[in-house]
Amino acid sequence: MSKKIKQYTIGIDIGGTNMKAVLFNGEKVVADYSLATPKDNLEKFMIMMNALIEPLQEKAKEDKVKIKGIGLGMAGVLDSSRRQVLNSPNLTIVNKENIADKLAEKIGMPVLMDNDVNCFIKAEARLGAGKKFKNIYGFTVGTGIGGGWWINNDVYGGATGGGGEPGEMIIDFSNEIGLEEAYHKLTQGNPSSIAEEAYRGDVLAEKTFQELGNILGLALANIVNLIDPEAIIIGGGVVESSDLFLSKVKKVMRQHIESSETRKKIKFLKSKLGEYAGAIGAAMLME
Amino acid sequence: MSKKIKQYTIGIDIGGTNMKAVLFNGEKVVADYSLATPKDNLEKFMIMMNALIEPLQEKAKEDKVKIKGIGLGMAGVLDSSRRQVLNSPNLTIVNKENIADKLAEKIGMPVLMDNDVNCFIKAEARLGAGKKFKNIYGFTVGTGIGGGWWINNDVYGGATGGGGEPGEMIIDFSNEIGLEEAYHKLTQGNPSSIAEEAYRGDVLAEKTFQELGNILGLALANIVNLIDPEAIIIGGGVVESSDLFLSKVKKVMRQHIESSETRKKIKFLKSKLGEYAGAIGAAMLME
Repeated sequence: MSKKIKQYTIGIDIGGTNMKAVLFNGEKVVADYSLATPKDNLEKFMIMMNALIEPLQEKAKEDKVKIKGIGLGMAGVLDSSRRQVLNSPNLTIVNKENIADKLAEKIGMPVLMDNDVNCFIKAEARLGAGKKFKNIYGFTVGTGIGGGWWINNDVYGGATGGGGEPGEMIIDFSNEIGLEEAYHKLTQGNPSSIAEEAYRGDVLAEKTFQELGNILGLALANIVNLIDPEAIIIGGGVVESSDLFLSKVKKVMRQHIESSETRKKIKFLKSKLGEYAGAIGAAMLME
Repeated sequence: MSKKIKQYTIGIDIGGTNMKAVLFNGEKVVADYSLATPKDNLEKFMIMMNALIEPLQEKAKEDKVKIKGIGLGMAGVLDSSRRQVLNSPNLTIVNKENIADKLAEKIGMPVLMDNDVNCFIKAEARLGAGKKFKNIYGFTVGTGIGGGWWINNDVYGGATGGGGEPGEMIIDFSNEIGLEEAYHKLTQGNPSSIAEEAYRGDVLAEKTFQELGNILGLALANIVNLIDPEAIIIGGGVVESSDLFLSKVKKVMRQHIESSETRKKIKFLKSKLGEYAGAIGAAMLME
C-alpha cells in the first residue's frame, strides 16, 4: 500500500556556482532542474529563480498535485528569523537582502529559508547516509566550505541560528588565515579544474589535493574535538574527486582527535543523496 | 523558611597544579580545602586525595550530616562510562587508570567522575555567572586549557562523552601547533609568574599576555562560529590576571565571529564562583 501523495514541495539549493531545484513528494524527487547561479545583480538572480521554478510548476500541474511552498537553501550566514542573508561570501548580491520575502512575493507561494548545508545534513540524516545516526556533522566542499550539524532529531541552530559554520575557522593564527581562505588559495576558486589536472597526472595538482586533505582533516579534527559526533558526512562538488584526497582527510583527522574512544568509533561517510541533497533538504523545510 | 539540610556531597577538582575540595550542601560550600597535586606517582596521589577528604569528613561529622558521596572533576579526556581517564596531558600518572573505582574503594563511598571543565560550567550555569542563560560555553585557562558546554539544562556529552575540548584545536596548520601547545610555549607552564612580571612592567611579559589574548580570542571565535552559544564564561587561574589580556581576547574573538548578529549578542563573562567553581560542580555530580 502506497499512501496517496497529496502535495509536493519545491526545494532550491543556491550554491556559489549552480542553483539546483527539486520537486519533492515527501519521499523522493519527482523532477529536478539546475541552472548556473547569476552573480552580477539581484534582479537577474530573481528572474533566474523564477525560470528554475517554472518547469517544476508545470510538472506539478501535469500530475494534478498542489505545491505547498518553496524551501530555499542558501550558502552563507542567515539572520535568526531565517528571512535575511547576513553574509554570503560566494554570492555577495544577496547580502543584507530579504530573499525569502522577495521570492514569496514574486512566485505567490510561501517560502522558508535555511543555510544550504543545514538543508544538506537534514536530507542526509533523514533519507541518506545518516539514517542510522543521531549526532551527525555535515561538511560540504564546493565553491566554498560549509558545515551543518544534526542533533536531537533536528538541525542545530544555536543562540542566533548561526551554528555549525567552519569557514571562518582560523587555522593559521600567525597569518590569521581561515579555512575558507586557505581553501580558495589552494583551489583558486576552481577545484574541479585542478581535479582534472590531478587525474591527468599533474604533480602540482596532486600536491594541491594532498594539502587540501591536510587542512580539511585538521579542521574536521577541531570540529570533532568540540562536538564529538557519531558520524561525519561529507558532500559538495569536490566529493566527486574524493579519491584524490578523502583518505588523506580521514588520516589527518584521526591523528588529531583527542579522545582515543572517539578516534575508534567515529564514522566518516560520503553523501548518499548526491548533488541534489541540499535541494531535497530545502524541500523538507516546507513539510 | 529554610529547608533542612539532610546530606552533604564532596566535590574534588583535580587540576594540573592544585586539587581543591569542597563540602557542599546543595546550595553552598560548607567547608573547603586545597592541596598541591602530587604528580610523581599514583600511590602518593591516592594518599593525598585521602588527606584532602579527611577534614571535610570531620566537618560533616561535627555537623551530624551524612555525606552521600564524592564527585570528581578531572582534567583531561575521560572514557564514555566516566570511570577511566584516557588522557590527562598535565597529570600523566592518572592516564588509563580507573580513578573513580580506586577512590571509591579507598574511601568506602560512591564516586562519580566527569571532566573538570564540565564540572566548572555546570556550577557556573546553576549557581554562578550563567544562571540567566541556556547555552553557555565554559573556557578555563590555568595549567592547561579546557572547555565544557552547557546546553538543554545539562553538560553536553557528545557521542562518546568527549565533547567541548579546545586544547587540541590546531591553530597553526603549517606547523601543526595546537592551542594547548601554543599556550605552553607562551607561558612556559607558569602563567602566574609571567603575570607577576607583567604587573611589574616587564615589556616582554606584557607582550606575552597580548599574544595569549590573540590566540585565545581566535580559538574562542572558532568555537563560537561552530556552536553559537549565548555566553562564554571564562575561568581558571589565569582569570586572576585577566586585566592583562581579557580585553584583547574579547576584541580578537569579536573580529572573527562570522555572524554579525552573534557578534552583537554574545556575552563574555568571568567566573562568579571563583577558584572553587570546579569543585562545586564536581559535588553536584552526586546530587
